[in-house]
Amino acid sequence: MKIAVDAMGGDHGPKTVIPGVERARDQFPDIEFLLYGDQTKIQQVIKNPQRLTVIATSQVIQDDEEPVKAVRRKKDASMVVAAQAVKAGEADAIFSAGSTGALLAAGLFIIGRIKGIDRPGLTPTLPDFRTGGQFNILDIGANADSKPEYLYQFAILGNYYAKNMRGITHPRIALLNNGTEPDKGNALHKAAYQLIAAEPSLNFIGNIEARELLNGRADVIVTDGFTGNAALKSIEGTALSILSLLKRTILNGGVKSKIGGALLKSSLGGMREQFDYSRYGGAVLLGLKAPVVKTHGTATPAAVYYTISQIHAMLAKNVIDDVVTYFSQNQLTRAPQKKD
Amino acid sequence: MKIAVDAMGGDHGPKTVIPGVERARDQFPDIEFLLYGDQTKIQQVIKNPQRLTVIATSQVIQDDEEPVKAVRRKKDASMVVAAQAVKAGEADAIFSAGSTGALLAAGLFIIGRIKGIDRPGLTPTLPDFRTGGQFNILDIGANADSKPEYLYQFAILGNYYAKNMRGITHPRIALLNNGTEPDKGNALHKAAYQLIAAEPSLNFIGNIEARELLNGRADVIVTDGFTGNAALKSIEGTALSILSLLKRTILNGGVKSKIGGALLKSSLGGMREQFDYSRYGGAVLLGLKAPVVKTHGTATPAAVYYTISQIHAMLAKNVIDDVVTYFSQNQLTRAPQKKD
Repeated sequence: MKIAVDAMGGDHGPKTVIPGVERARDQFPDIEFLLYGDQTKIQQVIKNPQRLTVIATSQVIQDDEEPVKAVRRKKDASMVVAAQAVKAGEADAIFSAGSTGALLAAGLFIIGRIKGIDRPGLTPTLPDFRTGGQFNILDIGANADSKPEYLYQFAILGNYYAKNMRGITHPRIALLNNGTEPDKGNALHKAAYQLIAAEPSLNFIGNIEARELLNGRADVIVTDGFTGNAALKSIEGTALSILSLLKRTILNGGVKSKIGGALLKSSLGGMREQFDYSRYGGAVLLGLKAPVVKTHGTATPAAVYYTISQIHAMLAKNVIDDVVTYFSQNQLTRAPQKKD
Repeated sequence: MKIAVDAMGGDHGPKTVIPGVERARDQFPDIEFLLYGDQTKIQQVIKNPQRLTVIATSQVIQDDEEPVKAVRRKKDASMVVAAQAVKAGEADAIFSAGSTGALLAAGLFIIGRIKGIDRPGLTPTLPDFRTGGQFNILDIGANADSKPEYLYQFAILGNYYAKNMRGITHPRIALLNNGTEPDKGNALHKAAYQLIAAEPSLNFIGNIEARELLNGRADVIVTDGFTGNAALKSIEGTALSILSLLKRTILNGGVKSKIGGALLKSSLGGMREQFDYSRYGGAVLLGLKAPVVKTHGTATPAAVYYTISQIHAMLAKNVIDDVVTYFSQNQLTRAPQKKD
């Protein structure tokens, strides 16, 4: 399999991306990499050129650029040329640590949606703090405005992802809502509930409140991109705030507190590790014709490696193919309110 | 001033509500209480009848009842009769620890909205973990579906609340959104941004992301009820998950970890206190003709006391009167897209 890598994405570009790629190359003998970006900078950090092909590009999309415009105008941007390679069948998947918006635009306009899917959903894998397991949540922000059909499609996409990637036979699918009763929600979520509940292939367990997100109640949580974005960022912000408050509390709590903190150091380090969900890989733009996977701009080489492992698994486990097959067989009957 | 108290609300009814009320009565010589509910149960817990009048009611609205139906049908419910007293001018405000939905329905249908306000917004006061200050956020769930005008009105309401109650001359007002740039958001938030930004009486500082909610960047955060509900519950769920993970980490971390935990105990207790926002009072249904204030069903007598202190301050500081004056003078010019 061939993976197209936007080598310029992320805060440190090739310096972070290439070490992660090389680690993945050493781990997975069946991956070949196409590395897009500044040839000199990439070559400088490559330690072993085996199964790495560098393709020189002259432009880079920055985080603060308007994504759609940037993708349309910067035709020689590393991300854009990498996406073109996937479209042309020269690569099977694309990895980037660059702008999420630009990757979404490149995925939508260059690689394209799976037939039957209206919008892709941005899908991370997150830790469940109660049971030590994981869950997928989508969409966490690819779409600001959503229709009930999108959420229905996210449920199908998430179901295949959890089945194929995590080996769960009947993933528990839940809808993030403002209450647990079936009639809860705004107009969007009430309609989405009906569509998802009517789908016989899903193990739909109903609504879930945001308070339960980290409690392992569901394997896949479906949400619209605006709410999902707010929920995920609230979780991240709260976790960071509490850890930093904890640190201040220990440091300002006097000698007894400082000794206590020192004794707890390794346990707390383990706890911090549990928050670090980069080990589960990046966020997938599910619903596109190939794996399009994003890691944080601040990602470490290890996070890059985990994300490439995830892409490897997506290709090996035919996640996209199974979704394509499903929607080619079911799109007309399953989403009656869809217009196109 | 007279406060109508739904003495039956909350998990323990009068047993929790009355001790909180008595503490507030002892603290504030200018409050008289009208206590609605089961006369026998209320009388049993009253220690000193001074400035407490018990009004017997025969029904109670449960948390799992459909709010609108319950308020319409249970005409002798403690909450409903208490709201009627406010409507009739026999009381100046209402307190309840009962069903939020029912209190919203009673507030809307019995007490009524301020002229110029389309929908009330549920407004808690929350701790900011970075600076140790507070912020208000509204709406956290009174409305599942919102229009841009509601968010504009929430900004005005929040502004008066922060000014009068917290003594902030020019409260920093922010809009919870999926990015900080002015053009971010879904259709609702883009339109709300324009309305709020065009309002000269507000110190609007623009969009804020959910990651920054607890960081003290704004005094008032405006959000639609669906997103606000998800954000707040995500914060609560994450805080609880982390604290419980911290506890397990300490207990399962071996002897060294347990000793560390013991040494840290008082510091961690102080940190836990910082999370407990009941000391700021309850959540206000801002936009109604009188203070309608809700505390958690699990509230302690102390939380009841804090909430009544908050109602006392709202009445003493003329929050509602100032909003009424504002909207009577400005409603036509300030919200051009409003239909009624």
